Amino acid sequence: MKIKDIGGEFALINRLKNQNKGLIKGIGDDCAIVNINGKKFVVTTDTLVEGDHFSFNWFTPEQVGMKAIEINVSDIGAMGGKPLFCLISLVLPKDIEVEVIDNIYKGMQKSAAKYNLNVIGGNMTHGQQLVIDVDMFGTVEEGDLCQRKDAKPGDFIFVTGDLGASTAGLKLYQAGKKPVGYVKRKHIEPKAQFHKVKPFLKYINAMIDVSDGLASDVTRICEQADCGAIIYADNVPIRDETRLAAKRLCNNPVDYALFGGEDFELIFTVSEKNLKNVKGYLVGEITKKKGVRIFKSGKETPLKTHGYDHFLSKS
Amino acid sequence: MKIKDIGGEFALINRLKNQNKGLIKGIGDDCAIVNINGKKFVVTTDTLVEGDHFSFNWFTPEQVGMKAIEINVSDIGAMGGKPLFCLISLVLPKDIEVEVIDNIYKGMQKSAAKYNLNVIGGNMTHGQQLVIDVDMFGTVEEGDLCQRKDAKPGDFIFVTGDLGASTAGLKLYQAGKKPVGYVKRKHIEPKAQFHKVKPFLKYINAMIDVSDGLASDVTRICEQADCGAIIYADNVPIRDETRLAAKRLCNNPVDYALFGGEDFELIFTVSEKNLKNVKGYLVGEITKKKGVRIFKSGKETPLKTHGYDHFLSKS
Repeated sequence: MKIKDIGGEFALINRLKNQNKGLIKGIGDDCAIVNINGKKFVVTTDTLVEGDHFSFNWFTPEQVGMKAIEINVSDIGAMGGKPLFCLISLVLPKDIEVEVIDNIYKGMQKSAAKYNLNVIGGNMTHGQQLVIDVDMFGTVEEGDLCQRKDAKPGDFIFVTGDLGASTAGLKLYQAGKKPVGYVKRKHIEPKAQFHKVKPFLKYINAMIDVSDGLASDVTRICEQADCGAIIYADNVPIRDETRLAAKRLCNNPVDYALFGGEDFELIFTVSEKNLKNVKGYLVGEITKKKGVRIFKSGKETPLKTHGYDHFLSKS
Repeated sequence: MKIKDIGGEFALINRLKNQNKGLIKGIGDDCAIVNINGKKFVVTTDTLVEGDHFSFNWFTPEQVGMKAIEINVSDIGAMGGKPLFCLISLVLPKDIEVEVIDNIYKGMQKSAAKYNLNVIGGNMTHGQQLVIDVDMFGTVEEGDLCQRKDAKPGDFIFVTGDLGASTAGLKLYQAGKKPVGYVKRKHIEPKAQFHKVKPFLKYINAMIDVSDGLASDVTRICEQADCGAIIYADNVPIRDETRLAAKRLCNNPVDYALFGGEDFELIFTVSEKNLKNVKGYLVGEITKKKGVRIFKSGKETPLKTHGYDHFLSKS
């Protein structure tokens, strides 16, 4: 049986979760949570595969290194945590230029320095395709921990910034039309956005970073919190640059925001009583009724799809 | 410049180490060491790439899963540590059978249970080639920590068990001659050997697990401890099954032990005054004089090569 036959990677993850209940403790959040000597820590791992997560046609090696660090810092941040150290595993094709590896490390160093993050070790081996795996470990203060399961019916859903720009950049690249400016930068140099929520972490119930689009990532919160959500599609922040790019490609920019990915803005939920303490764009609410429903011009439009699934795509 | 032009993966690691002195703290041991709340922990990552580190022609998926866990437990053990939790990152080719993934996890579960190890999370993505990356975190008691740098001239070098059997198994597979019994098992189902040194950890100065052959791994100790070593080649424990396999292939079994890899036995060094407290096979001594020298039938034979280097090999 192939992965597409069981419904793609989301189905696969659920299957493994169910089969390994005793084994896997942490699935369901951006990071696993571990207790060490009475203190909580968050741990995550994320992998970049050449051709799937980046292309050297568009990215410089330094930008690839930066991205590898930023996306893991984003996962730590989405739990309310602060990155502490990481390990780097590289699978290197035999004919890769040493300068490429040097520059990947240079990019990692640049991003790590921003966060006072230590790269403490790693591993290197040979393979057909460049694979960069980063494992990151962070601290989290008890009151700051944000888990997906803690979203509550009645919570309002916020996002920290505009969505869809990274997808706009990617689509332009894929169409052979060179993106410039904002949409290019958002795709090529994504940045963790944790600083935007840090001042009011204790008022946040659930949080997740936008890796697969607002609709997909809100769905993930709902799965863990055993609830549903309404998304106000007209209220999703989308920059003019993103709208323009979508127009060039005859696409709907709202689809980029809902189902595109890798914006790395943070989605968080807040109880009504705490609205006065937070800052962000209101994009929806958590409901008791299951399922994620999207409202556009006052009308409900059905949620068609999850985010991009490598195992379901034709290419 | 290609990796082979600078001298292979050992040269690459040194290059990165020198360029990233401020960045990378932990390179040089089987694990990085981190201090958390005044206690020491050990962290490691190891990657298995299909075709390079295992072949489904020889391994069952369950055995691949077991190997992925055992080799990381071996790294934790080589520091004197005890595994605590791990994360699993999988890069999956699109057409992989779901049952293969299920069985890889089953093998992981089997090995993890032996060590009371928690798999707390992970990541899954798509790529051309199956890549399994395990990141493991362990505890280590202050007096138990064994670092390569702590070998001292005059120390005796021990190994916990026979060497070369895994290479014998591999070479038979590669030659299309099906291995059986001991050499097959040592290649297909490697096991961490930490239990053998646990009773006398506090008497060990330096330790490393045999991943690239006795000569290569003793060289690594010497590099970190700024010393040299003599290896008594005639005293290296090699099983009859390994000798027989080497004979079938017209190879020298001592070469398997010195330059083959993946035995996962432990090499450790001990001061003379502590000899009475340890158990193992005496295979050499640490010297002030730099370089690793091999003695066979009382004569010095020059050390020709490091262990297997993917980036220098022709295939």
